[in-house]
Amino acid sequence: MAKLTSNPSSGHRLDVELADRPYPILINEGLTQSAGPLIRDTLPKAKHAVVISDSALGGLVAGVANSLEAANFRLTRITVPSGETSKSVQQVERLWTDMLADFTDRGSIVVAIGGGVVGDLAGFAAASFARGIPLIQIPTTLLSQVDSSVGGKTGINLPGTKNIVGAFWQPRLVMIDPLTLSTLPQREYASGLAEVAKYGVIMAPDLFSYLEENVESARNKDIGTINHLVAKSCLCKAEVVEEDERETSGRRAILNYGHTFGHAIEAEAGYGTLLHGEAVSIGMNMAAELARLLGRVDEAFCRRQRDLLRGLSLPICADGYDAQVLWEKMQHDKKMQHGSLHFVLPSRIGHVELVAGVEKAHVLDAIAACSS
Amino acid sequence: MAKLTSNPSSGHRLDVELADRPYPILINEGLTQSAGPLIRDTLPKAKHAVVISDSALGGLVAGVANSLEAANFRLTRITVPSGETSKSVQQVERLWTDMLADFTDRGSIVVAIGGGVVGDLAGFAAASFARGIPLIQIPTTLLSQVDSSVGGKTGINLPGTKNIVGAFWQPRLVMIDPLTLSTLPQREYASGLAEVAKYGVIMAPDLFSYLEENVESARNKDIGTINHLVAKSCLCKAEVVEEDERETSGRRAILNYGHTFGHAIEAEAGYGTLLHGEAVSIGMNMAAELARLLGRVDEAFCRRQRDLLRGLSLPICADGYDAQVLWEKMQHDKKMQHGSLHFVLPSRIGHVELVAGVEKAHVLDAIAACSS
Repeated sequence: MAKLTSNPSSGHRLDVELADRPYPILINEGLTQSAGPLIRDTLPKAKHAVVISDSALGGLVAGVANSLEAANFRLTRITVPSGETSKSVQQVERLWTDMLADFTDRGSIVVAIGGGVVGDLAGFAAASFARGIPLIQIPTTLLSQVDSSVGGKTGINLPGTKNIVGAFWQPRLVMIDPLTLSTLPQREYASGLAEVAKYGVIMAPDLFSYLEENVESARNKDIGTINHLVAKSCLCKAEVVEEDERETSGRRAILNYGHTFGHAIEAEAGYGTLLHGEAVSIGMNMAAELARLLGRVDEAFCRRQRDLLRGLSLPICADGYDAQVLWEKMQHDKKMQHGSLHFVLPSRIGHVELVAGVEKAHVLDAIAACSS
Repeated sequence: MAKLTSNPSSGHRLDVELADRPYPILINEGLTQSAGPLIRDTLPKAKHAVVISDSALGGLVAGVANSLEAANFRLTRITVPSGETSKSVQQVERLWTDMLADFTDRGSIVVAIGGGVVGDLAGFAAASFARGIPLIQIPTTLLSQVDSSVGGKTGINLPGTKNIVGAFWQPRLVMIDPLTLSTLPQREYASGLAEVAKYGVIMAPDLFSYLEENVESARNKDIGTINHLVAKSCLCKAEVVEEDERETSGRRAILNYGHTFGHAIEAEAGYGTLLHGEAVSIGMNMAAELARLLGRVDEAFCRRQRDLLRGLSLPICADGYDAQVLWEKMQHDKKMQHGSLHFVLPSRIGHVELVAGVEKAHVLDAIAACSS
């Protein structure tokens, strides 16, 4: 089982226990300044580090690179344009080619610095170069810190389908420095808070209450609050992933709370119009309304979740979407899974269930209830 | 440990025991006619099979496809041009795209039919599509039957470097039908025999003696002889791979006997001029000569290996290569591994050792001894 230890000076350390190999997630302010020695401790024999970073990041990457050089790593630096379109075959081919040209081999490691796009893309490059070389993740957005840094999913998109090519490739170390969030645009930051709230609803009532009691400091990027939220979120995700590492038992499905609606909204809006967390926030509200229509929760539950999401500056309503179109989009997603449409629905704060066979009329009503 | 069981009617069955998941290699004539039911038994819930085959194969693929359809698999058929150039980013992208277009998902499997090129390429597509779907290998060349069907290596080339992108992805079932070799060109067939002889030298004196005693029937594609050679070769490789699945302990290096010289010869000849097994055969002869120069084996050993290789219609001499150029090529390979140049050298039939620090003069002499 994942184990979280906390210490006033060294911050949080979460040990993720997976079948293959356990790895730690370290969470502390200023941590990236010690990237070199920490990575050297993790991989004493590595000779060469390929630092793959979001092109929008400047000083942070230089700091990590200097620290790696001081720890005796030969360096290759590659930047990736910001945005989802970088998760492409063309970009991963460019990474492979650049890595090969600079003599990357099985004595090398990949250090990914950025949000989910860089983590997924660089992670897949690490998973597939020389049949897999060690990966270090330094996520720099709240969303990637609480979501993609745990679980080992790496990958790229094909036109029309996200994450369809990739690998499960667990990092050897994840370093989370909440100071990296200081320059993150507020809207992107809030988008990450949606996933934190999600963990609260699906499995962690204490996390949900903590968020309610600290809405203000969460919204204002208070370092102590972020440390706590990130550590608890990673612990939640680690617990689920440990039970279902390769997404075979169905347990991992609860992480999709708010996502069935959310994906449909995101796709209809056009990717990039709504941020992922914003679509999830609206989707969580719709899922709660659907649960209420089915008698699984009461109006008080819906209000409580709505109040929290709104307090975190997240949208809870979808403007101008046709419920029928969203329904069809969900059907299409279902078809892509060769399966039936399931919803992850809450029964109380801290508990959700997988529900099949929901009637279309109820789904349309739930969407309508969340349209402004 | 790998277990080989044999039965007059059902042929050979080799159970390969790997950390993750054991899988069987079935070896029998006419086996491909039962592909559907055998694959159905292995993967009872799979709904859809993507059959990826060498474009030069006709009737065999149709037979497997019909058998799969009769076993209730929806089918997608994709062919790949013959030859090493198909192990490219472009081809794997085409596979991913075609698979996606025909609704491949986690309820699908990949069935690879062909030689090493198709096995490696389709294997990587299976490893990376939807983060990994089940793979069935039906190798149709002797080389792929005795070599690439065991070990789980999949991958593609980048310009100038073979197999640099890929994954370890173990098949769920390997089906080897010696009848598929009947149409294989004699030269390609003999190339596979080089790897069989290699297993004899590195670890299986009984296999080496069997080859000596059955040179004629081996060369003439006698079905019973092939069955035995393939089963014993796969057993050898499985034993090595089980000890060193991810090529981390160094044990797997013994499989490179004849390959240090062989790769240099292959590269200098230009890929495709010499077949892989032909280069390995010459490389084995050079390695034996080098071992003799170092006092590790006597001339009788070299003669015995030479006689067998010649008896199998394999070349043992390199014409017109500059020893100095081959040496430099080996140095370059060494540099690519961030390591020192090791040779796998025999001490007797059935035993080899990893030897470092060999002097250049001895290597040049060994090459010269094998030049006609």
